[in-house]
Amino acid sequence: VKAEVLAVGTEILLGEIVDSNSAFIAARLPALGIRLYRMTQLGDNRDRLVAHLRAALADNDLVVTTGGLGPTEDDVTREAVAEAFGEVPFVDPELEAALRAWFGRRNMPMPERNVKQAWRIASAQTVPNPRGTAPGWWVEKDGRIVVCLPGPPAEMGPMWEHEVAPRLAALATEVIITRTLKTVGIGEGRVDEMLGELLKNVNPTIGVYARGDGIHIRLGARAATAGQAQDLIVPVETQIRQLMGNALWGTDAETLQDAVMTCLQGRTLAVVEDSTSGGHLAALLSGTGHAAWRGGEVWSDGPVSIEAARARSAAARVRWGAHVGIGIAASRDGVFHVAIGDESGTECHTWTFPQGMAALRQRVSTTALSLLRRRYS
Amino acid sequence: VKAEVLAVGTEILLGEIVDSNSAFIAARLPALGIRLYRMTQLGDNRDRLVAHLRAALADNDLVVTTGGLGPTEDDVTREAVAEAFGEVPFVDPELEAALRAWFGRRNMPMPERNVKQAWRIASAQTVPNPRGTAPGWWVEKDGRIVVCLPGPPAEMGPMWEHEVAPRLAALATEVIITRTLKTVGIGEGRVDEMLGELLKNVNPTIGVYARGDGIHIRLGARAATAGQAQDLIVPVETQIRQLMGNALWGTDAETLQDAVMTCLQGRTLAVVEDSTSGGHLAALLSGTGHAAWRGGEVWSDGPVSIEAARARSAAARVRWGAHVGIGIAASRDGVFHVAIGDESGTECHTWTFPQGMAALRQRVSTTALSLLRRRYS
Repeated sequence: VKAEVLAVGTEILLGEIVDSNSAFIAARLPALGIRLYRMTQLGDNRDRLVAHLRAALADNDLVVTTGGLGPTEDDVTREAVAEAFGEVPFVDPELEAALRAWFGRRNMPMPERNVKQAWRIASAQTVPNPRGTAPGWWVEKDGRIVVCLPGPPAEMGPMWEHEVAPRLAALATEVIITRTLKTVGIGEGRVDEMLGELLKNVNPTIGVYARGDGIHIRLGARAATAGQAQDLIVPVETQIRQLMGNALWGTDAETLQDAVMTCLQGRTLAVVEDSTSGGHLAALLSGTGHAAWRGGEVWSDGPVSIEAARARSAAARVRWGAHVGIGIAASRDGVFHVAIGDESGTECHTWTFPQGMAALRQRVSTTALSLLRRRYS
Repeated sequence: VKAEVLAVGTEILLGEIVDSNSAFIAARLPALGIRLYRMTQLGDNRDRLVAHLRAALADNDLVVTTGGLGPTEDDVTREAVAEAFGEVPFVDPELEAALRAWFGRRNMPMPERNVKQAWRIASAQTVPNPRGTAPGWWVEKDGRIVVCLPGPPAEMGPMWEHEVAPRLAALATEVIITRTLKTVGIGEGRVDEMLGELLKNVNPTIGVYARGDGIHIRLGARAATAGQAQDLIVPVETQIRQLMGNALWGTDAETLQDAVMTCLQGRTLAVVEDSTSGGHLAALLSGTGHAAWRGGEVWSDGPVSIEAARARSAAARVRWGAHVGIGIAASRDGVFHVAIGDESGTECHTWTFPQGMAALRQRVSTTALSLLRRRYS
């Protein structure tokens, strides 16, 4: 099965929002044996949408769209899909009743404009949307499938998981399994050289990618069943693990913070950050849900110095009764100090990373986590 | 000037990373008078890249690519652009010297694989990359421009701002100015109805979009100069402001947290969250850099109740000496309590939002901010 994913919305083309829906869907296609060769974002323009849909349907078995199912005049996905299939939308009485009930339960009058969200075409079945007013469409015609989902991720995601994915799984004839091995401390070109001839491997394929938390190596195997695909991956993964040694810290969805919490071996951890790092590290650590996490504070001012980081590390241990305290002192122009202390002593480090606030916060957190891993693993 | 933006990387098509580069570039094109009709993501496949580049160059004056400039074998953007223009890459001696110097300054041996990053074609000028090893290309040929930038956002962004944008500005013949008016408390269909005939306006165009922080109304005007475009926007914006009244809380890049800090009128603010909201609200507030922000804490356990939220609101005021304290108590299954207290009393509210941790954190923060706005503005 060959697929294209298409996100619709002028706000995407204006850079006002980042299209995360396409990545959400893309991440779930390999397990369904579906190959994705292209993702596209288009604006709220009916003619361009129709032309793109026709071209995509000529090249693919499946097209998944997100967005353009709202009640407003510039939501034109329904019209475009109808025209691409040569059909005319009509108001589905059941959908209209459900829509009016949705507003009724919220004691809100339904704007007449919303009736558009009860439209359907003859080839379309409805994909229920329990969290919003826009139902999706599953259209099957001429050996092609078009799935239309709404743009808000909190509506689209559950509709994908509960309605669309099971139907696509029933059509699958093969499976693609991927495995990501995550390293830190060596560069992309060097990892490439270490892998050498392995990079020419065909099944699994092997790719190398630079990330915020180090260099990732991705294996992708294709087979009739997940078990057979796993069997293809295991010997290659073993080879790569031997090549990479201690630089390899985790796999797949594992995060550096998960890996760090595991290597603390029963020690508890607390953090005091300043307003520059602004709770970023605490949010990462609390997100692990790990029992070793004690808590964090954000201090809103103070000097940016090694001494300040050291004092915050000590304060973190005292305030939260933790074995290990991390103290952070960072300035907006990119100088940052990280202190890690426990009963055996405190280490302090200083870096400069003048790449803007968002990148700086990520870098400070990754650096603190890497230091923890080095100290305790 | 008509443009397409193209992001290259199999990891994007696997949903492993979200392509934020295209949105970064898209957001900066209107001010340069450049119209963007399509964004595309493709994998690390040379033949498909070449075919897509040729089609994009037939339809557009400008194509901007990100990604695929790394040193590894599956980085093929250079090869693809060369082939699309019928040219052959060679090693540029100046680029090679600069690359070797880059590694030399870091006391690292340069992997021979990296020589690829010193490639150039005859029609390409180099776009310097002070933060990484991959220089970009500015290719001009046959009345078309292709700009190739590396994938890491911390490298791509400054190259765009310092090198590419100024060159494109020199070519601009018109300007597109956008203005976003942000509302909260009314639905998308209702906003659409209130705007009525205004939605048919041609210059500026008017669009309506549902967002996490409410419904946005976007005006887009096109003119020879920024001043003329502004003159087109002002009377329409005035009309919309009258229609929307108090529901309108901000414009353009203004965030709800900025709007809230401003309406506090000298009161100071502190927050105690639990591990479910995990510092999300504190990170938003500290990110404003506003003097009214005192600080925040993340408490790692405790009951999820109105009483807990109330106690945390009081603790926030005491611990940070703030006029206003926000206390949050949220459970992972989506029930959350928000308490806002000051010397005149404390209000507590409870909601349910069972849409997963990430959506819950955003919802808790937005809810707390909306309550603050209602109480103090």
